[in-house]
Amino acid sequence: MIFSINQDVLLDTLNVVQRGLPVKTPLPILNGIKLEVFEDKLIFTTSNTDIAIQTVVEDESLEVTSPGRVVIPGKYLIDIVRKIASSRIELTLIENKILVIKADRSEFKLHVMEVEDYPDVDFLDSVAPLTLDAKTLKAIIKETNYATSVYEKRPILTGVNFKHEDEKLYCVATDSYRLSQKVIELSSEVDPFNIVIPNRSLDELSRILDSLNEDVQVFINPNKVLFKFRNIMYQTRLLDGVYPDTLRIIPTEFPIVIKFNKEELLKSVERVSLLSPRDKENNYNIIKLNVRPDYIVEISSTNNEIGDALEEIIPTDDVVGPMIKIAFSSKYLTEALKAFTSNEITLNFAGEIKPFVIKGDLDPDMLHLILPVRIE
Amino acid sequence: MIFSINQDVLLDTLNVVQRGLPVKTPLPILNGIKLEVFEDKLIFTTSNTDIAIQTVVEDESLEVTSPGRVVIPGKYLIDIVRKIASSRIELTLIENKILVIKADRSEFKLHVMEVEDYPDVDFLDSVAPLTLDAKTLKAIIKETNYATSVYEKRPILTGVNFKHEDEKLYCVATDSYRLSQKVIELSSEVDPFNIVIPNRSLDELSRILDSLNEDVQVFINPNKVLFKFRNIMYQTRLLDGVYPDTLRIIPTEFPIVIKFNKEELLKSVERVSLLSPRDKENNYNIIKLNVRPDYIVEISSTNNEIGDALEEIIPTDDVVGPMIKIAFSSKYLTEALKAFTSNEITLNFAGEIKPFVIKGDLDPDMLHLILPVRIE
Repeated sequence: MIFSINQDVLLDTLNVVQRGLPVKTPLPILNGIKLEVFEDKLIFTTSNTDIAIQTVVEDESLEVTSPGRVVIPGKYLIDIVRKIASSRIELTLIENKILVIKADRSEFKLHVMEVEDYPDVDFLDSVAPLTLDAKTLKAIIKETNYATSVYEKRPILTGVNFKHEDEKLYCVATDSYRLSQKVIELSSEVDPFNIVIPNRSLDELSRILDSLNEDVQVFINPNKVLFKFRNIMYQTRLLDGVYPDTLRIIPTEFPIVIKFNKEELLKSVERVSLLSPRDKENNYNIIKLNVRPDYIVEISSTNNEIGDALEEIIPTDDVVGPMIKIAFSSKYLTEALKAFTSNEITLNFAGEIKPFVIKGDLDPDMLHLILPVRIE
Repeated sequence: MIFSINQDVLLDTLNVVQRGLPVKTPLPILNGIKLEVFEDKLIFTTSNTDIAIQTVVEDESLEVTSPGRVVIPGKYLIDIVRKIASSRIELTLIENKILVIKADRSEFKLHVMEVEDYPDVDFLDSVAPLTLDAKTLKAIIKETNYATSVYEKRPILTGVNFKHEDEKLYCVATDSYRLSQKVIELSSEVDPFNIVIPNRSLDELSRILDSLNEDVQVFINPNKVLFKFRNIMYQTRLLDGVYPDTLRIIPTEFPIVIKFNKEELLKSVERVSLLSPRDKENNYNIIKLNVRPDYIVEISSTNNEIGDALEEIIPTDDVVGPMIKIAFSSKYLTEALKAFTSNEITLNFAGEIKPFVIKGDLDPDMLHLILPVRIE
């Protein structure tokens, strides 16, 4: 196996497939990147218990002298290619044991792993795919993934629910204290599905999609989902179990609606949180929101040890409905606000002990819900 | 106690005195910032077991309604002032118990600490000072402090030695494996001294000096040294004990001298270090340097588990002296190289098992020494 290629092309590919390397694994071979060299292309594969990634490189800078297959210690290969100053890199496999990496006046010799030991990875792209553009997919992940649970107590909640029915794609995440929902219109002919994708798999996918702006084909399989775009195949396992029916916990009638400038509300909440006491159960800061008779909104916190904080905010529109006093986690509100692109957002209250809903003028397909906590 | 002041002035001052707050302390009062309000100025004081800081604020934005004294929980005060959006802040002390911080539509009430409990701090500025400009002082810290020991085995080595004799200031740091020395000409009339300043105190001082470009007065006292500049007094304890006489371990004859482009050498060393094995004792990567008969220099590493790395570098000038093969910690060489401003540096070898010395064309007052390790 001998080939040479431009350093930047190789590095771009390695930056993608490295996301498939395990953090820790009982199977050392998975710390390697599988490389298959053909006359006209390279195929890189990585996999761990959650995800598998494959990229095909057919760059014009590629010059293959002889084909071959090898598994290369992933971390070291990436470190080396990243640090190389030369624009051109040559890789040569000697006796299936040593990979020689040459670039300008640098020469590295890496002990390689046994290619026959690398497990087979099937990328399942035979079903009819759903097509989403990368921008929409990134938006879904950004706007839902943070609301998934970090605790493994209810594993199903550590993923985002993607449900396709009635020509709509419902994307929902909840940790049972707050919820985020994005609904996309789908004109696709794809069969209905109801799957849950692990939050870490979506994080990694989002990073790979980062600078992309093209169509992504999504292949839904019984236990796996495959995202195919550009020269990349990204496959993740799905979470087992039934996702809770969240639609029925979202209130539909809101007697009190208050409109805010998002940045102003965000800054006030952040300041008040500086002194707010921590909730015992989940360690989040609890703050209070109070609509005064003069329709100025007070955000406040009380901490017996440290002191008190109070902010006044003038809503950007007339307040609809009666007075209200409600307490909740400031972390939930700040995270929700940051997910909105709108500058103007509304808080929609169904009652002092009922979940409240955040909506944004420019985000009609999005809805965030937060459960209040009882005060006193 | 009532006064108001511009937010940026208050924040600048807090950013300085916060460096005197303890990370951990058995004395809770030290978590507070002592504030004394006079008719025409504010005095802020912080202190911990190592350092004490005092700043005097006489800004024209200061408006004092009534004087007073208070100790305010430091972390909370800084967090609040940092987050405030208003340009103007008003502080009012109520019944010596509650500090009210008002800014625009924000209001914070902090429980304060007992001002009588705050320990007295003497800032010792009665001896004749030495004067250094801030730029030189920052350079001394940058070029020596990293070479101090991080282990407490020999506490005296965790500081930088400042020795004044024969109209020269010798600044030396060593962890007994490498050494950095900077020598400054002093025309000052100050008496000879020989002190050791803790590395952490120098780190904090360096951060405060960051954007300054003025003279710093240095008051050397028996157990303390005080740095006085602008409106700031920064005092640190000294380390007890006798600093080793390092001058005698620095070789003076160098049969082999090799000149390099600093960046080229640095990048090569960084690449070779990617595969280099770790030294058991201190966990640093060991690399080899070898001058070939054709006067090309090889930097290399051998790692039985991972593989080998080899770099060739062409010296930027004729190599003087015989061949040499020497091994050392790559961390020591990269840290030393980064301390130089020169683009051209020389490695000066006294022999394969003797310390070697690094010098820079543009850094005539600086010298770095590294102890080699034995190979095979």
